[in-house]
Amino acid sequence: MRTVYLNGSFVPEGDATVSIFDRGLLFADAVYEVCSVLDGRIIDQQAHLARLERSLAEMAIAHDVAATDWASVLATLIERNGLSEGTIYMQVSRGAADRDFLFPAPGTPATVFAFTQPRALVANPMAERGMRIITRPDRRWGRRDIKTVQLLYASMMKMEAKAAGVDDVWLAEGDVITEGTSQNVCIITPQGHLVTRDLGHHILPGVTRLSLIKIARASGITIEERPFTIAEAQGAAEAFVTSASLFVMPVVEIDGLKVGDGLPGIETMALRAAYIDHAREPR
Amino acid sequence: MRTVYLNGSFVPEGDATVSIFDRGLLFADAVYEVCSVLDGRIIDQQAHLARLERSLAEMAIAHDVAATDWASVLATLIERNGLSEGTIYMQVSRGAADRDFLFPAPGTPATVFAFTQPRALVANPMAERGMRIITRPDRRWGRRDIKTVQLLYASMMKMEAKAAGVDDVWLAEGDVITEGTSQNVCIITPQGHLVTRDLGHHILPGVTRLSLIKIARASGITIEERPFTIAEAQGAAEAFVTSASLFVMPVVEIDGLKVGDGLPGIETMALRAAYIDHAREPR
Repeated sequence: MRTVYLNGSFVPEGDATVSIFDRGLLFADAVYEVCSVLDGRIIDQQAHLARLERSLAEMAIAHDVAATDWASVLATLIERNGLSEGTIYMQVSRGAADRDFLFPAPGTPATVFAFTQPRALVANPMAERGMRIITRPDRRWGRRDIKTVQLLYASMMKMEAKAAGVDDVWLAEGDVITEGTSQNVCIITPQGHLVTRDLGHHILPGVTRLSLIKIARASGITIEERPFTIAEAQGAAEAFVTSASLFVMPVVEIDGLKVGDGLPGIETMALRAAYIDHAREPR
Repeated sequence: MRTVYLNGSFVPEGDATVSIFDRGLLFADAVYEVCSVLDGRIIDQQAHLARLERSLAEMAIAHDVAATDWASVLATLIERNGLSEGTIYMQVSRGAADRDFLFPAPGTPATVFAFTQPRALVANPMAERGMRIITRPDRRWGRRDIKTVQLLYASMMKMEAKAAGVDDVWLAEGDVITEGTSQNVCIITPQGHLVTRDLGHHILPGVTRLSLIKIARASGITIEERPFTIAEAQGAAEAFVTSASLFVMPVVEIDGLKVGDGLPGIETMALRAAYIDHAREPR
């Protein structure tokens, strides 16, 4: 049985419960992070904790991220669960209080928990064959830059992808792509430029997206952060997604049309290898 | 200490906990209902349970609403907590499973709970003075007709109303009003017609809204279900909101402009009285 972290303690997962009055459960009033573990070490830990702090600030959840010794919590979870490769999930909700849309009194303790999930990240078979994607309208709320647990639409879209026999959904406003259900999206133009959606309230500022941009720029690739359409993605030389757990993952088909020759892109796979090198760098 | 209902049992509220892996907590993957209790009896119980069943079906949560004997659960909660006037909250989530956007295996038990909240509904002082409202952009997700727990934006807007020293927020797409943070909205035109937003994915099909429409129609009022703008509401003869817990509640100010003479409308107060009569009807 996994050991999980809950409000200051490490407990068996079966004992980890929260009140039915927790605002995470009643109002989706909670933010989260997922970071990946490779060779027993966390990738981009500082950037994930910085984004958690930003999410808490945007939601005015008065929980000082520094009040939890996250480095120690994460290290303990890795050690106790013998996690070599996988993900760690962290969530902070505004805490439990009798149900009221208004935030509870200051001083109400936040609910803080974290758990590990083992998973093959490097040897993901999807990297060999590439992802097949369908597009759907983006009907999520307007502050997708904050990593809240309002994930119902993303969850529904993942189910729709499964029912359609494909790997995932890209979301679009009109014909302009915002992001994947749980990834940022990138294309490589016929000219070899890397295009990814510019930041704003419409997408999550991905930690992996940012690391990848730095890696690509360092290798001489021109980066364009701007909107692009479904048609431009279908006509791109290559396409891929970035996320903490998928790293850089090639996309070979969008709405039934092959991207390039329908195989994982050469540039994409080079970027994936470079990202894995970055993840394994001594820190 | 309150007695609450959780997964087939009646337990003290302090003992009512759910797993940190509950999808209600991780994905906002849960639907709910709130119904009001007056004189120890539930108002429009059948309509609330029918809407719960619809929400479950829309979300494909495989929990037969008939599997829970809700009539008995609600009656027991009222009796054990001595609830004469107030609300009962009911929630069904897709249940607990290791975190995955994809829905868990069929057969995963839903998490079902309910609790009471005593509250003065008839003698609400706001009915005497009327509500002051501000408008804000509607940035919620696209399926507001399903009563999910994705209530973070509504909660944030209630806080914004509080900070602005007013009673609540009406949400608008462009200058067209959708609904309140937790109420449907109605206006009475200078011609005496009752105008309320037509149903669709953009608003919740309110149980109280529907009861009120029937009451108003029976008393000879012409009903128009159609979009209306903030300006039309400000220029209306009267304005009010409907919800299970507010019943019919007059609105006297919108974005700093008085509605009519700035006092609760005569027609509105007559409708409120008629609604309370309906709520007290022997069933």
